[in-house]
Amino acid sequence: MPMTFRIDFRPIVQVIGLLLVALAFFMMVPAVVEAQMAGTTPWEFIFSSAFTGFIGLALVLATRDDEPVNLDIKQAFLLTATTWLVLPIFAALPLLGLGLPEDATHSYTDAVFETVSGITTTGSTVLSGLDTMLPGILLWRSLLNWIGGIGIVVMAIIMLPFLRIGGMQLFRTESSDKSEKIVPKSAQLVKWITGVYVALTALCAIAYYLSGMSMFDAVNHALATLATGGFSTHDSSFAGFGMGAQWVGILFMLAGSIPFIAYIKFARGRKHAFARDPQIKAFLRFLAIIILGSTFMLMADRDWDFFHALTMAAFNIVSIVTTTGFASTDYTLWGTGAVAGFFLLTFAGGCAGSTSGGIKVYRFQVLWITLREQLLRLNSPNRVVILNYHGARMPTDLPLSVLAFLAAFFASIAIVTLMLAMMDIDFVTALSAATTAITNVGPGFGDIVGPSGNFASLPDAAKWLLSFAMILGRLEVFTLIMLFDPHFWRD
Amino acid sequence: MPMTFRIDFRPIVQVIGLLLVALAFFMMVPAVVEAQMAGTTPWEFIFSSAFTGFIGLALVLATRDDEPVNLDIKQAFLLTATTWLVLPIFAALPLLGLGLPEDATHSYTDAVFETVSGITTTGSTVLSGLDTMLPGILLWRSLLNWIGGIGIVVMAIIMLPFLRIGGMQLFRTESSDKSEKIVPKSAQLVKWITGVYVALTALCAIAYYLSGMSMFDAVNHALATLATGGFSTHDSSFAGFGMGAQWVGILFMLAGSIPFIAYIKFARGRKHAFARDPQIKAFLRFLAIIILGSTFMLMADRDWDFFHALTMAAFNIVSIVTTTGFASTDYTLWGTGAVAGFFLLTFAGGCAGSTSGGIKVYRFQVLWITLREQLLRLNSPNRVVILNYHGARMPTDLPLSVLAFLAAFFASIAIVTLMLAMMDIDFVTALSAATTAITNVGPGFGDIVGPSGNFASLPDAAKWLLSFAMILGRLEVFTLIMLFDPHFWRD
Repeated sequence: MPMTFRIDFRPIVQVIGLLLVALAFFMMVPAVVEAQMAGTTPWEFIFSSAFTGFIGLALVLATRDDEPVNLDIKQAFLLTATTWLVLPIFAALPLLGLGLPEDATHSYTDAVFETVSGITTTGSTVLSGLDTMLPGILLWRSLLNWIGGIGIVVMAIIMLPFLRIGGMQLFRTESSDKSEKIVPKSAQLVKWITGVYVALTALCAIAYYLSGMSMFDAVNHALATLATGGFSTHDSSFAGFGMGAQWVGILFMLAGSIPFIAYIKFARGRKHAFARDPQIKAFLRFLAIIILGSTFMLMADRDWDFFHALTMAAFNIVSIVTTTGFASTDYTLWGTGAVAGFFLLTFAGGCAGSTSGGIKVYRFQVLWITLREQLLRLNSPNRVVILNYHGARMPTDLPLSVLAFLAAFFASIAIVTLMLAMMDIDFVTALSAATTAITNVGPGFGDIVGPSGNFASLPDAAKWLLSFAMILGRLEVFTLIMLFDPHFWRD
Repeated sequence: MPMTFRIDFRPIVQVIGLLLVALAFFMMVPAVVEAQMAGTTPWEFIFSSAFTGFIGLALVLATRDDEPVNLDIKQAFLLTATTWLVLPIFAALPLLGLGLPEDATHSYTDAVFETVSGITTTGSTVLSGLDTMLPGILLWRSLLNWIGGIGIVVMAIIMLPFLRIGGMQLFRTESSDKSEKIVPKSAQLVKWITGVYVALTALCAIAYYLSGMSMFDAVNHALATLATGGFSTHDSSFAGFGMGAQWVGILFMLAGSIPFIAYIKFARGRKHAFARDPQIKAFLRFLAIIILGSTFMLMADRDWDFFHALTMAAFNIVSIVTTTGFASTDYTLWGTGAVAGFFLLTFAGGCAGSTSGGIKVYRFQVLWITLREQLLRLNSPNRVVILNYHGARMPTDLPLSVLAFLAAFFASIAIVTLMLAMMDIDFVTALSAATTAITNVGPGFGDIVGPSGNFASLPDAAKWLLSFAMILGRLEVFTLIMLFDPHFWRD
C-alpha cells in the first residue's frame, strides 16, 4: 500500500532557498575582510558563496509563489529540522579551503564537524593553529556561531512553542496562541529579535575593544559570546585576555542566555520585564550561589585573592552553564571536585528562548514543582493539587512533555556515549563528549575533548556521530525524532 | 509555635522491637555454624545477639498493646524508613568482632558500611581476605543480603504501593486497593512471600551444591543470589567457579529479580502468571538482546567460542542488571565499550516487587509509553490520548510519580558524586560509586570500586556517605526524603 503524503514541501524548499541566499551573502563578509587584512584573494569564500547562492536562487525560483508562506504543523517540523541539517552542508564549504594552499585545507569531515559545532553554538573545535589562521576563516567560524545563535532564538520563540516540543508550549505568545498556523505576523517578532541581537553584539564588541582586545578579536568574540557559541580566535581561548575582557564576557554570555522576549518586552516599555521573569530570577540566583561557593573554595585551595578567584570561578562557570564553552584556564586541573562539578553543570543550560542549550532553567523549575507536588500528595493522598508556574496554572501536559524530553535527552546521551566507547574511546572522553555535544556546551573532559584539548584526534566516525548529536541537542531532540516516527509520514 | 504531632509512634517502636528480636535469633545461626566449623566460641555473635535481643524485647514490652497493628500513611512511612536506618546499627555489631583477636575486628565505619551494603542487597564490600575469614562472619554477610532481600520484597509489595512511591501505586493489590490502612490481612501475603523466598533459596543452594560448590559456599551464595545481593565468600567472587555454577547463578539471579507476586499467583494456580506479566516479558527480551549482542562482540574481540562468550556475557550482564553484583571476571578489561555499557546497565534494575534495585523495568515502560504518547500528540495536537499500561488505563498520576522519582534519583546521584569528588576521589570512581550505591548494584569502575577492587581504601566520610546513599536508593529515594519535608511533621 503506497503511503500518501499530505505534506506540501514547496514552502519548506522556498524558505531553505531563501536561507541559502542569505548564507551566500554572509559568506561575502569574511571574503572582504580576508582580502583587506591578508591581502589575498579569498577564493574559498568566492567559490562557496557562488555555489550556495546559485543553489539557493534555483530553489527559490523553482518554488516561487505569490501567496504568503503559512506553515502547518508538519511543515513547521520539517522546516525546522531540515534547516539545521541542510545549512551546515553549504556553510562548511569555505572550510574545505578550495583554491587555498594545501596546508589551509580541511577534510570534509572536519569542515562539517566545525560548521555544525559553530552553527549549533556548541563551540567544540577540530582546528588548531587558530592564532595563525586566515582572518576570513576565523571570522566565518564566529559568524557561524552568530547565525546559529539568532537561528535558535527565532526557533525557540516562534517554532518550538507552536510545536509543543519538550514543554516549550509554556512560552506560547499571543501570536502563536490563537492559531494553528504560523502566521506572517511572526515577521514582526523576527525583526525585534534581530534588532536586540545586533544591538547586544555591537555593545559587546565595543566593550571587548575597550577592555583591550584588538578590533578583530573584539568583533569575533562578540559574535561568539552573544551566541553562547564559544569559538575563539586563539587556541588558548580566553586565557590570554585580561580580567576586563573576562568580565565583559561574563556579562554578555549571561545576556545571550536569558529569554530574548524579556528584552523585547523591556524595549516596548515594560520596565519590570527582567525582574518579573521567573527563569531569569532562578537562573541568576543559582549562578550566584555556585560562583560564590566556588570562589571561596578556590581561595582556600589555591591561595588566590578574592577578586582573582571570583573572576576565574564566574567566567568558567558562566561559560559552561550558559553553554558557551570559552575557557580562561584549564579548570579541570582545579581538582576532582571541579571535574565532577563542571560535568554536572554541563547539563544545566540557560533560559529557554535564548541562545543557550542544555536542559534549561524552566525544565528544572517544572521538575521542582512536580517534585514538591508529589511530596504534598504523598502526605495527603486525597488532596487535589494544582500545579502553578509563576502564579499561573501550569498546562497539564507540561510535566509530561518535560518527562518525555528528559527521557529522550538522557537516552540520546547514553546511546552516543556507548557508540563512542565502541570506537575505542575511553569512558570519560566518550561520556563527556556525548554530553557536551547534546547540551551544545563545547568542552568535555580528558586530554582530547577537555578545555585544553582538541577534538581533531577523534576518529572520523566519532566526528560524524558528534555532529549529529549536536544537531539533535540543538533541536531539543524531539524535532528530529519526529521525522523518524512513521506516524509523521502517514496521512 | 510548638509543632503538634498526630503521629502515634507506639506501633512503629513495637514493630522495630519485634524485628530486633528476630534479628537476635538470626544471629544465633552463624554462631552455631561458627562453633561447629571453626571450633571456637563465637563471642562476637553471642554478645551482639544478647544486646540486640535485650533492646528489642524492651521496646516490645514498653509498647505492648492488645489491639492489632494498623498503620496510617505517616506511620507506614516512618516505619519503612526507620527499619532500614535502625536495623543496620544492630546488625553491624558482629562485624566489630568483640571478643575476637584484634586482626578479626573492624572499625565501626567499616562494620556499618558492610552491613548496610548487605542489608540493602548492594554487595559492595570493604572487607578482604574473605577466603580465610571466620565462617560465622561470612555466613552473617550472606544472611544480611538474604534478610534485606525479603525485607525489600515485603516493602515493595505491601508498603510502597500503599505509599504511592515512585509510581508503585501501579502495583496496588486487592489488599491495598480498598483501604486507607495497612490491614493485618497483609500477614497472609507475607507468609506467601516468605514461602516462595525460602523455597527458591533452598533450590538454588541445592543447584549450586550439585554444580560443584562446597555445601558452605552453596548456602552462602544461594542466600546472596536470591537477594540479588552479591556478597561472596571469596575475594574473587565467581571467578573461581565453573560454568555450571555460573548458569545456576544466572537462573536464580533472574528468579530473584522478577515480581514475587507472579510466583504467588502461579502457586495459587494461575498458569500464565509469568507469561502475562508485562515486566517479565520486557525484562527477558531486553536481556536476551544485549546478552546475545555482547556474546558476538566478545567472540569477535577475544576469540572465545560461543558458549564461553555467552556464559561470560550472560553472567556478568545479568549480575549487573539484576543489581546483584557478582563478577566472574573483570569485565572492565573487555574494552572501552564494555565500560560504558556496564555503566549504563548499572541504572537498569530488575522488575518492581522483586529484590532488585535500580530504575526498574516498569518505569522504563512508563517512560516509553509517555514518549510514544508525546510523539503522537505532537503529530496531532488535538488528539485525546489515553495512556495504557498492559491493556489497562494507566493511573493519571503515574507518569508524574515516575518523573518525580527520576528527578530525585538522578539528583541524588549528582549530589553524592559531587560530595565524593570533593573528598579527592577521582571522577570515574566518584560517579560510579554514587551510581552503584544508589542503584544497589555493588561494583563500580576504576581500581578502587571496580569489580576487582575494594571499597576499603575510601575515606571514612565516603563510606558513611555511600552507606546513606545505599539506604536512600533502597527506599526509592522518596521514603527518606519525605521525612525531611516539614509538611510531613506538621499537623
